Amino acid sequence: MNSVKSYAAKSAEKPLEPFQIDRREPLADDVEIKILYCGVCHSDIHTARNEWAGTTYPIVPGHEIVGKVTRVGSDVSRFKVGDTVGVGCFVDSCGHCGNCKEHNEQYCENGVSQTYNSLLQDKKTITYGGYSTHIVVTQKFVLNISDKLPLEKVAPLLCAGITTYSPLKHWNVKAGDKVAVVGLGGLGHMAVKIAASMGADVTVLSRSKDKEKDAAKLGAHHFELTTDPDNMKRMGSSFNFIIDTVSAEHDYNQYLALLKTNGVMVLLGAPPKPSEVSAFQLIGGRRSLVGSLVGGIKETQEMLDYCAEHNITSDIELINIDQINEAYERTLAGDVHYRFVIDMASLN
Amino acid sequence: MNSVKSYAAKSAEKPLEPFQIDRREPLADDVEIKILYCGVCHSDIHTARNEWAGTTYPIVPGHEIVGKVTRVGSDVSRFKVGDTVGVGCFVDSCGHCGNCKEHNEQYCENGVSQTYNSLLQDKKTITYGGYSTHIVVTQKFVLNISDKLPLEKVAPLLCAGITTYSPLKHWNVKAGDKVAVVGLGGLGHMAVKIAASMGADVTVLSRSKDKEKDAAKLGAHHFELTTDPDNMKRMGSSFNFIIDTVSAEHDYNQYLALLKTNGVMVLLGAPPKPSEVSAFQLIGGRRSLVGSLVGGIKETQEMLDYCAEHNITSDIELINIDQINEAYERTLAGDVHYRFVIDMASLN
Repeated sequence: MNSVKSYAAKSAEKPLEPFQIDRREPLADDVEIKILYCGVCHSDIHTARNEWAGTTYPIVPGHEIVGKVTRVGSDVSRFKVGDTVGVGCFVDSCGHCGNCKEHNEQYCENGVSQTYNSLLQDKKTITYGGYSTHIVVTQKFVLNISDKLPLEKVAPLLCAGITTYSPLKHWNVKAGDKVAVVGLGGLGHMAVKIAASMGADVTVLSRSKDKEKDAAKLGAHHFELTTDPDNMKRMGSSFNFIIDTVSAEHDYNQYLALLKTNGVMVLLGAPPKPSEVSAFQLIGGRRSLVGSLVGGIKETQEMLDYCAEHNITSDIELINIDQINEAYERTLAGDVHYRFVIDMASLN
Repeated sequence: MNSVKSYAAKSAEKPLEPFQIDRREPLADDVEIKILYCGVCHSDIHTARNEWAGTTYPIVPGHEIVGKVTRVGSDVSRFKVGDTVGVGCFVDSCGHCGNCKEHNEQYCENGVSQTYNSLLQDKKTITYGGYSTHIVVTQKFVLNISDKLPLEKVAPLLCAGITTYSPLKHWNVKAGDKVAVVGLGGLGHMAVKIAASMGADVTVLSRSKDKEKDAAKLGAHHFELTTDPDNMKRMGSSFNFIIDTVSAEHDYNQYLALLKTNGVMVLLGAPPKPSEVSAFQLIGGRRSLVGSLVGGIKETQEMLDYCAEHNITSDIELINIDQINEAYERTLAGDVHYRFVIDMASLN
């Protein structure tokens, strides 16, 4: 075992602080990674503060990890020391259930091992995430990262990128489709970039006029205020696909009404409480309200390669690890454009 | 114009009573039909009583119509006098919008002309439904009916049949798929028959043990009580497709939890008030909550031919027109197996 530095929350009420964790000595299939950058996802905050319940303390968050390979096990041929690699939202799965066989490890029927606050497949070892200097991960769950793009801006692709890429691909969004994005945060800004790169006609829907300039800079073709009922009425039945990234409580029906016949609205944010849905909104246009959770390993690699090819990265603000608690507060206040990323050199 | 006998409600509070309506003299594209049988759909009651708002009185309900051709216009070649034909939930549409061109007239972007309580494409002539001796319909919206099956049992296929057939086809339900049906009424009993005929493994979910025998008789392979929490837990993540036919308020989340990864729950009943949906239920398994409204004319013909081939009809109770108000009360009380059908000879 190797003791490494990390940042952990020791209870729901406490700020994150330095904490020493053990990483296993690499096994035959393992890749040991020195973490360079780790993105700060809203899920990190929900989990650190036990807002979704089920947090085991101390918790080391972080699942948008980019780093360099430092050691590999004897059965590892895909990676060698010095390679640039990534780790996303999970680090293992059963490998033999129907979903794993179909490359949907995120829905593993026997329980995926998430990167933090989860159990490895031995069902007893707790996982610690990327707010640390090193991580050891079985090779199947390690991603190749191109050195073409700035690595600190690539890190958020491991969650925010795949979470938005996967539903766009799964529901077959294509060039010319009208796509709306609700919520211009970490997920939303990636949704705009990726949907626009696919040739979709992208509209940012927002309650605040302040977002208009940024929406255009990110590549959105249109910006519409949702606070004006006449505006909402005018937009009725006009979108093929709506990406809803908002994790605060909100009304789904006003957005469902904007979908064309056969339109799909995908929920990526999970409000703590249920929201009301009118059956009429779904029935009247054979509309779908769906959910999607990150993406499988194969699709994550596809997304990383796609983003490298299309020069797509996250807009970020680089911080040192000792700024993490302030970054949490600023994330909750919506004061980030659009993702905090920790420079892990600051932990050494 | 031809004055014909019908039954109409003159206000939301009044029972249906005899009423004289005018049917147009057949135009070049028209088919005049002597109505033999008309099914009694739950929508008839909602509309007669203005429970969905927007009812224009007097209202003549009925959109599950089977009859014989009595006259045809000069441009009609598909039908001749004496043919057995059907009319479903709509009698015209714009014909040129995207949805009409894709044979989804039910979602006509310029407003479909429903069979009753609606306007023809002139946007001023009110439509009267099948609780009458005759109806005149433009040929494109007239369906061929095989004489192989008892016609009184075929009538409900025009709404209950297509409403359940269409989503099973649209979401590609296939042999071996696990399908659950919620609500064993007019729609639910057709869903069981049609899904079973497609080779699906069909489960009826019910709050009442009383339905168990009937479920088996209709062709369901399993019956499960939804009132037992342990039973619901055991069934978690086990269905590919859930057909929810309940139009009273109910909790969608308990059924969403029963869907496998990528599972779809289709709403066919429209509760007057919205129901709560938990985003977690959708996100955790890439599940879909969708709606579907009857089916287009082309698909309705396909369904009628399919049912003739597979000997599928509705279980019905034949009534005379003067029993209609009692039939409404019994429908609301769930006291019908499974569809009232009016023998229209009783109106003469």
